[in-house]
Amino acid sequence: MRHVVESQQFDRPLLERVFALANEMREVAASGGNTLLAGRIMATLFYEPSTRTRLSFETAMMRLGGQVITTENAREFSSALKGETLEDTVRIVGSYADVLVIRHYESGAAGRAAAYSPVPVINAGDGPGQHPTQALLDLYTIQSELGHIDGIRVVMVGDLANGRTVRSLSYLLALYQDIEITFVAPPAVGMREDIKEHLQNRGVVFSEEQDLRSVLPTADVVYQTRIQKERFADRPGEYDQVRGIYVIDREAMELLPRDAIVMHPLPRVDEIRPDVDDDPRAAYFRQAANGVFVRMALLKLLLAPEA
Amino acid sequence: MRHVVESQQFDRPLLERVFALANEMREVAASGGNTLLAGRIMATLFYEPSTRTRLSFETAMMRLGGQVITTENAREFSSALKGETLEDTVRIVGSYADVLVIRHYESGAAGRAAAYSPVPVINAGDGPGQHPTQALLDLYTIQSELGHIDGIRVVMVGDLANGRTVRSLSYLLALYQDIEITFVAPPAVGMREDIKEHLQNRGVVFSEEQDLRSVLPTADVVYQTRIQKERFADRPGEYDQVRGIYVIDREAMELLPRDAIVMHPLPRVDEIRPDVDDDPRAAYFRQAANGVFVRMALLKLLLAPEA
Amino acid sequence: MRHVVESQQFDRPLLERVFALANEMREVAASGGNTLLAGRIMATLFYEPSTRTRLSFETAMMRLGGQVITTENAREFSSALKGETLEDTVRIVGSYADVLVIRHYESGAAGRAAAYSPVPVINAGDGPGQHPTQALLDLYTIQSELGHIDGIRVVMVGDLANGRTVRSLSYLLALYQDIEITFVAPPAVGMREDIKEHLQNRGVVFSEEQDLRSVLPTADVVYQTRIQKERFADRPGEYDQVRGIYVIDREAMELLPRDAIVMHPLPRVDEIRPDVDDDPRAAYFRQAANGVFVRMALLKLLLAPEA
Repeated sequence: MRHVVESQQFDRPLLERVFALANEMREVAASGGNTLLAGRIMATLFYEPSTRTRLSFETAMMRLGGQVITTENAREFSSALKGETLEDTVRIVGSYADVLVIRHYESGAAGRAAAYSPVPVINAGDGPGQHPTQALLDLYTIQSELGHIDGIRVVMVGDLANGRTVRSLSYLLALYQDIEITFVAPPAVGMREDIKEHLQNRGVVFSEEQDLRSVLPTADVVYQTRIQKERFADRPGEYDQVRGIYVIDREAMELLPRDAIVMHPLPRVDEIRPDVDDDPRAAYFRQAANGVFVRMALLKLLLAPEA
Repeated sequence: MRHVVESQQFDRPLLERVFALANEMREVAASGGNTLLAGRIMATLFYEPSTRTRLSFETAMMRLGGQVITTENAREFSSALKGETLEDTVRIVGSYADVLVIRHYESGAAGRAAAYSPVPVINAGDGPGQHPTQALLDLYTIQSELGHIDGIRVVMVGDLANGRTVRSLSYLLALYQDIEITFVAPPAVGMREDIKEHLQNRGVVFSEEQDLRSVLPTADVVYQTRIQKERFADRPGEYDQVRGIYVIDREAMELLPRDAIVMHPLPRVDEIRPDVDDDPRAAYFRQAANGVFVRMALLKLLLAPEA
Repeated sequence: MRHVVESQQFDRPLLERVFALANEMREVAASGGNTLLAGRIMATLFYEPSTRTRLSFETAMMRLGGQVITTENAREFSSALKGETLEDTVRIVGSYADVLVIRHYESGAAGRAAAYSPVPVINAGDGPGQHPTQALLDLYTIQSELGHIDGIRVVMVGDLANGRTVRSLSYLLALYQDIEITFVAPPAVGMREDIKEHLQNRGVVFSEEQDLRSVLPTADVVYQTRIQKERFADRPGEYDQVRGIYVIDREAMELLPRDAIVMHPLPRVDEIRPDVDDDPRAAYFRQAANGVFVRMALLKLLLAPEA
């Protein structure tokens, strides 16, 4: 593995290797970090801000003893303003640092960067395109919380048409056995055909529902997402209605099996009520913490695979 | 001590412990730092910019061998824009880092953060509320420059109604013996009643004057502050007058005892003239430097109290 | 050497010392860095953004084991907004860090900073004034690529009136023997009289041409620069014409000797075509990489000259 550009580059053996490493990294972090990447430098080039993702990557690098150079608004501040191409920037910063973490507003930007970079590139989200480390940490959280992925029933809730995370997660789940997915979304923002076709081709059982409560009792994983107001710009009434229906509150938690978990890519607004946070099945903060371990695992694979 | 949220959490024994540690930290810094906090990560989450405070904290962490992840405009860049609460942000970033340093535009924000953070929180200023590390470094500077705090006469000058520093310093001075405070301010921005009542209850002698020169000859400490033009928006004439009167210049320095000191939380505009800077009694740049030692002391107390 | 403020402070022996050190630093970086500056802190205070220059300095510090505190928009965020002078800022941040790297929008700012700073100051560009580390890395690139500087023929192309880099490089080249310089520029932005006079006084042979192709066959170095559209605000027709003429493309490369090199301070827009990048004579990305080695050399000279 030379770059991390898209979820599709991961097959099941590679995923299992990443998750095993992430488990090790959890121990490394708990014991105060190590010096595996001492002397190595990560550049975080963020063409659009995403403070949490950036800090998660930087933490991962530092827990392995590495250092970080960073810009959180490359779009405004860098030579991009003067007309420099991403390809040129990547060649130059790639001659400073040992790994580039790139967040960009254009789909495909990470792939273009990888084609020109002298050092490994990790995609930290490129516009409406890919955000593979989020997809990996989502799947790792299921593995870590439930102990297995084969055979689970996943309910995905919210804006499934525009949500990058639910699309990638659906794709990766199709690599596992006996998966059942239920999509729960307002019709205006239901899961798109391309993903549904892919699931069909891979033999994944899926269905579409609009009543969240009816599907909770048989779920192993509820993956909740934020419904963005701007998607309903021309249907304000529908937004308010949708927002009220697709909420995880205490009442919803009572319908959920004892061993199920609730996930969310965060940030959340009010689609999971704060009084759910103390429920042991609320896995979303552990999920965010898992991002550091998964990113540590990827950094090891890219920069010190033999160590 | 689990968090540093407000000046009121410090009693005299704790202050003396912090100051003794700060003295040690001065030596540590002079000898090139140590590795007490190697492998530990500080997150500086600044919801409003304060470059100097941020750099002072980050220097403190690095002098102890630690590392830093940072954002200097969390308000604009973070998930706050998408509606995420401070409580959620703190739980997430607190799962990355070992200590959070938070600057916020809302009074009480640091306390709210501390209630939810899995790791220690240090308040680096929350709006019109508290800025406890500034208060500590002010008091430490007096201790360090004069060798004692009991029995001193302090003149506080400028905008005492809106100045967070003079309010906190007054509060902390009340923990010492035989303190005399003189407040020198234009009537429009005099010291507020709550602090005056507190001093009265603690038996601290204080008075209010408008003639700066008359009180300089008996001062041990002159604490000068900036008068903000915007406070006089509806009284422009008064601003210009006030600005001319409450100035520390060479002439004022001649009235000051030989062993007194002049302090200022900085930045200054012209309320202390640059030609005063070379006077050995001008302690304000040493005061700023002391901030690093006090913050090192607090980091040690929070993260490695037994070391 | 206490500060790095302007190109004129470097004489030939010092340049040769810097370049010899930069060669060593190239080895240090290739072998994973060292710990020469462990425990030392660099503050990068950028009053105007220049992400690449900042990241290059920060990489240099980290490759030597040091740490970095930074602000990339000191102008907007720092106490400058409240009226604090650069001199005050420098005294304060100079009490935190061991070396200050300053980028400023005002000519002469670095010199003013150096006069007040308790620690070494490096000028990372002060407005239309100086950018000495760029000048050093340009000259080092010639030395490194060609093996010598004496006796070379340099063609400088583009906006020579406003280009800081070509002015500084001309100045430094005058310290060497048997240099020939050809200035190729639209008349509106030709090389200014002050530099031409200086070259004359130093006995450097130079000429001015408008036909780029005619001078390529005898060049050792072509130093291309970006022509800024805004310089031709009142002559839009001239800009389009100029832009088309002064371009390095494959056809131009065919006119260039086999051992010549093409340099550019970057960012480029389209004045060097991307299909030239793979030509071994295209030295501009190596030139950018050299910036790290030159800055490592300067840091060693300033902070650990005896090590």
